[in-house]
Amino acid sequence: MTELATSIVDALQGVVGSGNAVLHEPRFQGNEQRYVADCIASTFVSSIGAYVERFEQALAEYTGAKRAVAVVNGTAALQVALRLAGVKADDEVIVPALSFVATANAVHYLAAVPHFADSEETRLGLDPGALREWLTRTAERTGEAYRNRHSGRCLRALVPMHTFGHPCDLQGLMAVAKDFRLALVEDAAEALGSRYQGRHTGTFGQLGILSFNGNKTITTGGGGAILTNDERLADHAKHLTTTAKRPHRWDYVHDEIGYNFRMPNLNAALGCAQLEQLPDFLASKRRLYERYRAAFAGLEQVRLMQEPAGCESHDWLQTLILSEDVAEQRDDILAATNDAELMTHPAWRLMHKLPPYRDCPCAPLPVVESLARRIINLPSSAGLV
Amino acid sequence: MTELATSIVDALQGVVGSGNAVLHEPRFQGNEQRYVADCIASTFVSSIGAYVERFEQALAEYTGAKRAVAVVNGTAALQVALRLAGVKADDEVIVPALSFVATANAVHYLAAVPHFADSEETRLGLDPGALREWLTRTAERTGEAYRNRHSGRCLRALVPMHTFGHPCDLQGLMAVAKDFRLALVEDAAEALGSRYQGRHTGTFGQLGILSFNGNKTITTGGGGAILTNDERLADHAKHLTTTAKRPHRWDYVHDEIGYNFRMPNLNAALGCAQLEQLPDFLASKRRLYERYRAAFAGLEQVRLMQEPAGCESHDWLQTLILSEDVAEQRDDILAATNDAELMTHPAWRLMHKLPPYRDCPCAPLPVVESLARRIINLPSSAGLV
Repeated sequence: MTELATSIVDALQGVVGSGNAVLHEPRFQGNEQRYVADCIASTFVSSIGAYVERFEQALAEYTGAKRAVAVVNGTAALQVALRLAGVKADDEVIVPALSFVATANAVHYLAAVPHFADSEETRLGLDPGALREWLTRTAERTGEAYRNRHSGRCLRALVPMHTFGHPCDLQGLMAVAKDFRLALVEDAAEALGSRYQGRHTGTFGQLGILSFNGNKTITTGGGGAILTNDERLADHAKHLTTTAKRPHRWDYVHDEIGYNFRMPNLNAALGCAQLEQLPDFLASKRRLYERYRAAFAGLEQVRLMQEPAGCESHDWLQTLILSEDVAEQRDDILAATNDAELMTHPAWRLMHKLPPYRDCPCAPLPVVESLARRIINLPSSAGLV
Repeated sequence: MTELATSIVDALQGVVGSGNAVLHEPRFQGNEQRYVADCIASTFVSSIGAYVERFEQALAEYTGAKRAVAVVNGTAALQVALRLAGVKADDEVIVPALSFVATANAVHYLAAVPHFADSEETRLGLDPGALREWLTRTAERTGEAYRNRHSGRCLRALVPMHTFGHPCDLQGLMAVAKDFRLALVEDAAEALGSRYQGRHTGTFGQLGILSFNGNKTITTGGGGAILTNDERLADHAKHLTTTAKRPHRWDYVHDEIGYNFRMPNLNAALGCAQLEQLPDFLASKRRLYERYRAAFAGLEQVRLMQEPAGCESHDWLQTLILSEDVAEQRDDILAATNDAELMTHPAWRLMHKLPPYRDCPCAPLPVVESLARRIINLPSSAGLV
């Protein structure tokens, strides 16, 4: 074990104790049992039920979005949001190379093509300056849209992802989206509770999405939501995610190709209870951040991710970034911490290197190529300290 | 109200009483509350958890399939099963025109094209004789496969759907599939508990699927399963439905494009409790069938669907079929019964008539064109009598 790995294990144990700690686990200390039991007793566990509406209203209230539509998971939310933003077969959608694979998969499910772009070193999210430069070289105007002059495909949408909960430079990205006629769809799967200039992430784009997977700050088992300030898009999202069946007393008419993507009422019941505790979870995660900050302050070769200027970031996953000169020690550190039952993870494999996405269009990626070798996520559960 | 409508309302009230009755509602009188509470207390509500494995094993045991893979819903199950059966973009997949829209949607999600075929009057499922005749005229051999000589597309798979729980003529359909080199994938979404020649539906094809939506015989809120006797396909189904992530202590490598389609442990907990009660539900639904049979015996203009010869059919939805001479009274009967708070439904709008599927290839459909005007589903919940 290297000296640095030992120091990191010590620092972590100083914060979370000498027991084991997973990367992120949920807590159920509120009304979860009560609401779920009530949901089962009502017999409305599936497509219809009061908890879905209540969860959607509570999400809209919390995020400030005009509407929230609860769905079966974040991937489904992104797929539908992109379709509503106008993404069609054979379009290109600009996504960060540094993201969970679902960001690209959602594009692929629409028979569109992900186009990977670089991130900022400090925020980890898409870099508007580098993107503007890339598009200036790569995109050409054709009618109302821009197309990729190499592939000939239409560039339709831009998907900023708020990595580990840290908001992207939304102002810069909104300007790029405007100038290149790209629909802005925010992948805020990791960013429930995070704000940019006082406003909740996921509410800046035409549409945004959240995830409530088991590893997220709040969970519904599996679940996600579409956020939008456009009532018409919200109604359409509801229609598409409930098989596009026209309302009728008995007749079955589906007027377009929809999805079986509604969130079951059972899962929404869990979500209602979880959302009530979100402020406590965020406060707990903030305490953890402060403890990590103190613990890692003396280690010059690592930097603990902090919230970007002008943002409140809820630090979904606490993140150490190794300096370039110790990057080759990353796997030693991962091994040492996991051997000590302190679960740590590297960043995702960059998407342009995954077998199914190797041939997709790609901007130069110097920053994420480097970041991907230097990121280590730390145990981040609410309630750890 | 026509005389026939009055007679049908009277007959229904004679069976289910004068209160209201919905089409199908779930019952939670077993271990649902206990298992779900235990699941929440364990904190494993999401992608990992003992209930998912237990539910999969119980399903395999009950159906006799070698393996069952639990997923987020029946539509997702069919999409993945078709992909595993070799369906690719621009293939054609033969499906019944008389089915819920999800059967065709699953084909579309793979960028393939549904090709609609006719059903049998007695079973409501695909008619192997008519299909053979149609394919003999329409399909031409090209290498290992057959293609549609009109569209030029490859005919890749055949999807029998066991309508309202009544098994199709699987023997006949398997022979057609063999002769025309079609993969057989059974849509048994409605047929949990139904057997064909003693063997459970969904286990005859290369793959089969089940649904546990809230309106089905047992429910997980939202859920489905893929059945197969091929271990390799089952492993691949698990891989594809869990984002195709290769197992690794910390690394994220997705070796193909997968889906976020796993069933959450919370929903599987409900499913385990529901499955324990399935024999009771089936017995109760059988009693209801016997009562309906007696009640409708005197009405010559209607026929109550009964299980096909050689089958045990669990009658997911009890079904009246009007004789041709009273078909035009269908909407009067639907209105009269629903006005009396006895929920009844017609068959689904035939899929080749739905806006998104109007231009798909289509066999002659004389039987379903007639059936679709004559089918009325009756209140069918377990526990009604």
